[in-house]
Amino acid sequence: MMKVTAAGLIALAWILPGMALAQNVQPNPPVKAIIEAALKDDRAYAFTRDLTTDIGPRLAGTQAEARARDWAVARLTQEGFSNARIETFPLTAWERVHESAAIVGPHAQRLEVHATGGSPSTPAGGLEGEVVRFADMAALRAAAPGSLYGKIAFVDDIMPVTKDGSGYGTAVVKRRECSAVAAERGAIGCLIRSAGTSEREVHVGQGARGQQGVLPVLILANADANQLGRVLAKGPTRVRMEVETKVQPAAQSGNVIAEMRGTERPDDYVVLACHLDSWDLGTGALDDGVGCGIVTAAARLVADVAGPPKRSIRIIYFGAEEVGLIGAAAHANAMKDKAASYVLAAESDSGDGRIYQVDFGFGAATETAKAAIATALQPLGVARRGDNARGQSDISALRPLGVPVMDLQQDASKYFSIHHTPDDILEKVDVESVRQNVAVYALVAWFGAWTTLDFRAQ
Amino acid sequence: MMKVTAAGLIALAWILPGMALAQNVQPNPPVKAIIEAALKDDRAYAFTRDLTTDIGPRLAGTQAEARARDWAVARLTQEGFSNARIETFPLTAWERVHESAAIVGPHAQRLEVHATGGSPSTPAGGLEGEVVRFADMAALRAAAPGSLYGKIAFVDDIMPVTKDGSGYGTAVVKRRECSAVAAERGAIGCLIRSAGTSEREVHVGQGARGQQGVLPVLILANADANQLGRVLAKGPTRVRMEVETKVQPAAQSGNVIAEMRGTERPDDYVVLACHLDSWDLGTGALDDGVGCGIVTAAARLVADVAGPPKRSIRIIYFGAEEVGLIGAAAHANAMKDKAASYVLAAESDSGDGRIYQVDFGFGAATETAKAAIATALQPLGVARRGDNARGQSDISALRPLGVPVMDLQQDASKYFSIHHTPDDILEKVDVESVRQNVAVYALVAWFGAWTTLDFRAQ
Repeated sequence: MMKVTAAGLIALAWILPGMALAQNVQPNPPVKAIIEAALKDDRAYAFTRDLTTDIGPRLAGTQAEARARDWAVARLTQEGFSNARIETFPLTAWERVHESAAIVGPHAQRLEVHATGGSPSTPAGGLEGEVVRFADMAALRAAAPGSLYGKIAFVDDIMPVTKDGSGYGTAVVKRRECSAVAAERGAIGCLIRSAGTSEREVHVGQGARGQQGVLPVLILANADANQLGRVLAKGPTRVRMEVETKVQPAAQSGNVIAEMRGTERPDDYVVLACHLDSWDLGTGALDDGVGCGIVTAAARLVADVAGPPKRSIRIIYFGAEEVGLIGAAAHANAMKDKAASYVLAAESDSGDGRIYQVDFGFGAATETAKAAIATALQPLGVARRGDNARGQSDISALRPLGVPVMDLQQDASKYFSIHHTPDDILEKVDVESVRQNVAVYALVAWFGAWTTLDFRAQ
Repeated sequence: MMKVTAAGLIALAWILPGMALAQNVQPNPPVKAIIEAALKDDRAYAFTRDLTTDIGPRLAGTQAEARARDWAVARLTQEGFSNARIETFPLTAWERVHESAAIVGPHAQRLEVHATGGSPSTPAGGLEGEVVRFADMAALRAAAPGSLYGKIAFVDDIMPVTKDGSGYGTAVVKRRECSAVAAERGAIGCLIRSAGTSEREVHVGQGARGQQGVLPVLILANADANQLGRVLAKGPTRVRMEVETKVQPAAQSGNVIAEMRGTERPDDYVVLACHLDSWDLGTGALDDGVGCGIVTAAARLVADVAGPPKRSIRIIYFGAEEVGLIGAAAHANAMKDKAASYVLAAESDSGDGRIYQVDFGFGAATETAKAAIATALQPLGVARRGDNARGQSDISALRPLGVPVMDLQQDASKYFSIHHTPDDILEKVDVESVRQNVAVYALVAWFGAWTTLDFRAQ
């Protein structure tokens, strides 16, 4: 449900024209018109529908990701953006072939598992060992060297459901570290509880960033981790696991970039970003098809309402985000001497949840601009928080270059039960909530590209 | 939430003792005591937890089903039932090895599929063909002979969500008939939309009863059927499908039977039934572990409240229900000359949903007994409907032998999104609702075995 009330819009119409916006700002931001247009615009949903249908899953470095780039260039061109192009970079691409795990012995049964990104294969025919459960990575780290010789480590900490998704950072530690830490203690494999909040769907994700793991690592759905725990409570338990994966060291990924040219300061860019790659089990609808839909629709929508921008808008669909922000690093490297041309950057990469909070990562002397933006976002239910924005996802690689950023925090209550699972599909997209996101990014785009506000000002 | 109110129980305590129950009925059924005990009894849940943990999936004819029978004999003995034993019967057992399907060509992507029970394998390496969509089986039947030569038929009708699960009978037709009908028209394979209401989980189930299909049949999750439909809307679409299954013609299944001996009429039996086998993707928690837990707990509970029964209670956990009521047929055949000893039969095989309605399948001169039972069930929210009960699941094979039956209709709103899918696991069991079911079956057990009412009376 949208929470924009008529009263809220009227109040806003009174507030904003009266505000003393410093610098060269249009005196009357078309906030009401932008919000009204966004709340009935379904281009972001249509974009997500078409990307997930035409391409489906888009794992970094695969042919599907390459098809998605071509698709995106065509789509951006069709949507009226200029100079749509691909910025390529090399990638060691990893793909799953198959994986399975089963409890053997008196409680024999299959477990629902998927390998972590980067997991090596087991020896052909699989491996089998007694399972040793650890409550979390700290408990595994405390295990003595050699104590897991010939065994399988099972790290079982649970990610809590929260609005801000704050448990995710802790939950993913086991995905990144189990392999190395368990190997040091003599283990032959890792089983880890899903770092996501879905009961039944396995939440996959990259293991150790930028490197192949030492041990094969299988992720158990939460319900299957429960089940393994119940069986372990009955006595010693052996599990058989089999993983086959493949690596293509000479693969390629790429970022897709396009512009809407500014009329007054065409060499100043407002960057609106998302990422095009996805995990391989769902169709990457929430992560991050919808994010690309949101930023693309938002830019189009402001141009519809307010005409051409003063500054250029640069849309970037990053590649290879999921496997370690590889596209972001490539782009930041390409931009390192030209970062001053980026006047503002924001990324949409938390699915379709409503945006409820904004953090700024601007210069010290930008209070007027921040106040104006925060006031405009208020009727959409977005509260101003702090000044510690570091740039979400790929944009985080631009912040160290001095690029002003905004973090638009979305309600993640649902996101982490869908994110990185087979459930990340079009059917999960909440059209109403997406419209609110488009409205927010459209207002951000307006303040960034239809004014000449300085967000770096110290 | 239970809807048994204190006021309801008090009202009932007034009504029942005053009722003129015909025949040899205890004048004061311990309705209040049974309900109160059931609503805090978790033996049905514990049974389900232990069965699904100790054994897990129990596909008919497999070693897992055999382990489940041994487990059940031990459990029934431990619960105080006597003469726990296995009634074996031969079975042609079918198992899945693996299956996959993918859209090929410009929209290449994997589809989430599982084979129907009884589906044959594709040729090694799989098969590929253009997909032809049919809105339902009637549309496929209307296709001209030869019109599907070399193609894959896709039958796409959707099962609606209803409280009484009434759409299921229609939805499963395609699962049973696509193979034969499509083959007659020249097709090389079938894709069918899941006959269940889950968006993402494939609802599996038996194809043509008691026979291997002609064509390989893959079931698409509802979301994947949507996806295939969206891709088909863009133009001709080819799908590659691969199925490997195996058949063991000389396998065996069995029914597990045990008794609680009656003190006055030990050769009269009240049959409380469920089935022990399950589909292979989940752990058969709702279908039908919980049903076995419910009837077992119900019988134990009445004995706790009211002492030993007058008639014997026979608990039957049928085998091989899922693949065509094979255990039911074997048992009905074994009982065909002794069916008069079965004075009443009921089965719990619709999961954990609240019971909201009762149908009787009794003789004509049983109004007093029906009224007494219906009145006792009323405070649990169970309404009396009609006299057309045919016996649910396995018990339906006893009705033609003249056995009086009761159909206890459960709210199936949730059941058909879990039933036959990988989601049929312990985590889905609603403890409160299960307690209500135990209360209902306990009251049925009381009227059946702690009285000598004649439910056959004409």
